[in-house]
Amino acid sequence: MAESTNSTTLDLSPEQNAQYDMITRRLQEVLGGEAIKAILKEGRTPKAYWGTAPTGRPHIGYFVPLTKIADFLRAGVEVKILLADVHAFLDNLKAPLELVQHRTKYYEYVLRAVFTSLGIPTSKLHIIQGSSYQLTREYNMDNYRLCATVTEHDAKKAGAEVVKQVESPLLSGLLYPGLQALDEQYLDVDFQFGGVDQVSLLLLPPIQHIPDRYVYFVQRKIFTFAERYLPRLGYRKRSHLMNAMVPGLMGGKMSSSDPNSKIDFLDSPEVVKKKIKGAFSEPGNVEDNGLLAFAEAVLFPISQLKVDQAKGTGVMDEDGKEALSTDPKSFASDNAPEGTLFTVNTKFDGPMHFSTYEELRQAYKEEKLHPGDLKPAMVDAINRLLDPIRKAFEANEEFQKTESLAYPDPNAKQPAKKKKEKVYHPPPPGKGKNTKLNDAPSADAKSESAAAPDTVNAS
Amino acid sequence: MAESTNSTTLDLSPEQNAQYDMITRRLQEVLGGEAIKAILKEGRTPKAYWGTAPTGRPHIGYFVPLTKIADFLRAGVEVKILLADVHAFLDNLKAPLELVQHRTKYYEYVLRAVFTSLGIPTSKLHIIQGSSYQLTREYNMDNYRLCATVTEHDAKKAGAEVVKQVESPLLSGLLYPGLQALDEQYLDVDFQFGGVDQVSLLLLPPIQHIPDRYVYFVQRKIFTFAERYLPRLGYRKRSHLMNAMVPGLMGGKMSSSDPNSKIDFLDSPEVVKKKIKGAFSEPGNVEDNGLLAFAEAVLFPISQLKVDQAKGTGVMDEDGKEALSTDPKSFASDNAPEGTLFTVNTKFDGPMHFSTYEELRQAYKEEKLHPGDLKPAMVDAINRLLDPIRKAFEANEEFQKTESLAYPDPNAKQPAKKKKEKVYHPPPPGKGKNTKLNDAPSADAKSESAAAPDTVNAS
Repeated sequence: MAESTNSTTLDLSPEQNAQYDMITRRLQEVLGGEAIKAILKEGRTPKAYWGTAPTGRPHIGYFVPLTKIADFLRAGVEVKILLADVHAFLDNLKAPLELVQHRTKYYEYVLRAVFTSLGIPTSKLHIIQGSSYQLTREYNMDNYRLCATVTEHDAKKAGAEVVKQVESPLLSGLLYPGLQALDEQYLDVDFQFGGVDQVSLLLLPPIQHIPDRYVYFVQRKIFTFAERYLPRLGYRKRSHLMNAMVPGLMGGKMSSSDPNSKIDFLDSPEVVKKKIKGAFSEPGNVEDNGLLAFAEAVLFPISQLKVDQAKGTGVMDEDGKEALSTDPKSFASDNAPEGTLFTVNTKFDGPMHFSTYEELRQAYKEEKLHPGDLKPAMVDAINRLLDPIRKAFEANEEFQKTESLAYPDPNAKQPAKKKKEKVYHPPPPGKGKNTKLNDAPSADAKSESAAAPDTVNAS
Repeated sequence: MAESTNSTTLDLSPEQNAQYDMITRRLQEVLGGEAIKAILKEGRTPKAYWGTAPTGRPHIGYFVPLTKIADFLRAGVEVKILLADVHAFLDNLKAPLELVQHRTKYYEYVLRAVFTSLGIPTSKLHIIQGSSYQLTREYNMDNYRLCATVTEHDAKKAGAEVVKQVESPLLSGLLYPGLQALDEQYLDVDFQFGGVDQVSLLLLPPIQHIPDRYVYFVQRKIFTFAERYLPRLGYRKRSHLMNAMVPGLMGGKMSSSDPNSKIDFLDSPEVVKKKIKGAFSEPGNVEDNGLLAFAEAVLFPISQLKVDQAKGTGVMDEDGKEALSTDPKSFASDNAPEGTLFTVNTKFDGPMHFSTYEELRQAYKEEKLHPGDLKPAMVDAINRLLDPIRKAFEANEEFQKTESLAYPDPNAKQPAKKKKEKVYHPPPPGKGKNTKLNDAPSADAKSESAAAPDTVNAS
């Protein structure tokens, strides 16, 4: 349940209350809920942003924030997804800018495919590249103003719990909390949603094994930092909505260098099966269980969405037509009782039907449901989620081409290339302001795969 | 004498050697002298930059770096003076940007008036505003690249000795060493000259009483920081020329809030007399003596310049004509022996003639020359330096208008002004890149006078 730190002082209509509930349901924490209510009360469209840095291959952990973003879109929120390409470039200076551009494009393909597959109209969804505004005069002047306002101590505190684990943290780590605050202003939003990637932005070089509680802690600190400092620049304080942290889908320790530790959006059904089979899932252990967490944050809400869509209470597209998921069937079996959202076919006890996550959790905790039975049901559900994404990929040559450019096979033979001496001639002062990001000088091109975030958020 | 850390391996012509000697004479330290020699050897024009932040009123301590810059210009160096308006704005966020623009213009008037008065042709002198290039995409991308390369620890070390004296240093203090390194690249110079203002850039808020040894220490650290990190971005390492630190002209502790502690370029002859009379100058003490330091760094070199100009060995302007100081007479009395550069008329012993600073120093040390005699000679010399500046000011209405806008009388009555609520609408992403600095949002206007640097450099 969403918790608001403010008491409810605004009298909303039942429709507005329903809107607010959809925006804030399943969240861990809401900072500044009253400001969102005030917007709804005035009949305005709330605007939100969620940011991610297009570094490593997006994995299905992204379903967690995207499922919540689907709520925002259903509630009529205007959503801006920031693809932080500048941050991605800085995250690994060895990756050439061109590669980052391909990855940014690939992320956009995947994100749009996910929303399309869920029947979420994207007319109010804007995908924005950081480089489109983060290198402008105004933004940078504000960055400098912020740096001349924020003490070293405060900037450090905003990311301290994680940064202190790095032996020699980079200066950029101190800048990111401020830049993230400025993004709220420059993206012109009312609230920021804390999703999968906030923390990895802070970590240069990326750290792989951060305890989840730290990740949440840091995300919250960055948000309160923004609330404190944006007004000092004369800008409005924004609201902040936070997902709870959940363990990664595969459980246990994950490594970005081990492709088996994450399920890719384009993994084949067989690969998904193999990976889930290997996922850590201890009988009776409901705390450190990535499968259950994924079921709670993704499968149940999406199953409910499909039920709503079937009832005609889903969400209208801009033509006023009912939008539908590509696969309209929920994760309940055909003959499941009314209200079922997830069915697990067990080896010995036949089908078990769950209408809430709490029921699933309880059955697992009491070992009435064994991981050996849960896993095949998860494989089936996840493959049904991925099927339309895979199909969209197969049907779109540009999507395919982008993927191979974004994540080139490290084992593929590279054409022999003579290394040129790099000479950069800066533009004369005052010139060249409009040069594209692509034209900026970059380090030598090298085929590599940056790390994807290892921890995901869910309710 | 200039010390080069590199052994002389290049065989220069006598003219090139003379050029190099003029560039490096009277400096405390030269880092990368060989690179400058190589440029001279190739017959190219060396390019240099010196930066200052147009904050408080420029005082006559600026004669110290300007006297050295006159050497560069005489040696045919292309000199860029960076008026760091962005830094000046950040130095005191309460001062509106408009005020900074007026101050920048005022600094330019003063600097040009000084060079004109000394008969130094300014065809190879470029005065550049920081805002003309420091807010571009390329510069900021490089700033981010640098921040993703430099550790917090290294950035801190570059300014640590001073910054640690501040209770809560601002984040900007960690950025400045990097920005100063980038300026070398973006101003496209071969060397940077360390003058009066390098340290004050680091100090936000400004500190008034930094021991001189720290100031020099920090300046050197910032320069070696630049030498270390610029190549990491793929840019060429630049050379660095450093003036020695000298105590402020007035000696003792100076305070920016006390106008008597500094001599303004526009002070009247009577005010100069009064201030010098009050300057700290202990008989026999040649170490902590601002008057002697000023004589060494400014009066002797400028007197020599005038002698050279009279002999026709000064410097040609671009038409090949001999340029002359506005006041062509040296600081020797009319009937002084050949080679005299400075004459002091003493109360009891008649005129004392000095052809080198060392002679002056020795006489003072042995108390053959008393401060009571030195002071009137200093008053006379300084007034002769200032006279053409004052005249240029009186003759130029724009200069006068700029001065009153740049440093408005804090006691003048302000027209009653209704305070408006500030609303800033950021441009949509990707728009508004070409907006002028003036258009950026700024804090409320307030009449104030920022602190000028309190320590000056000299040989």
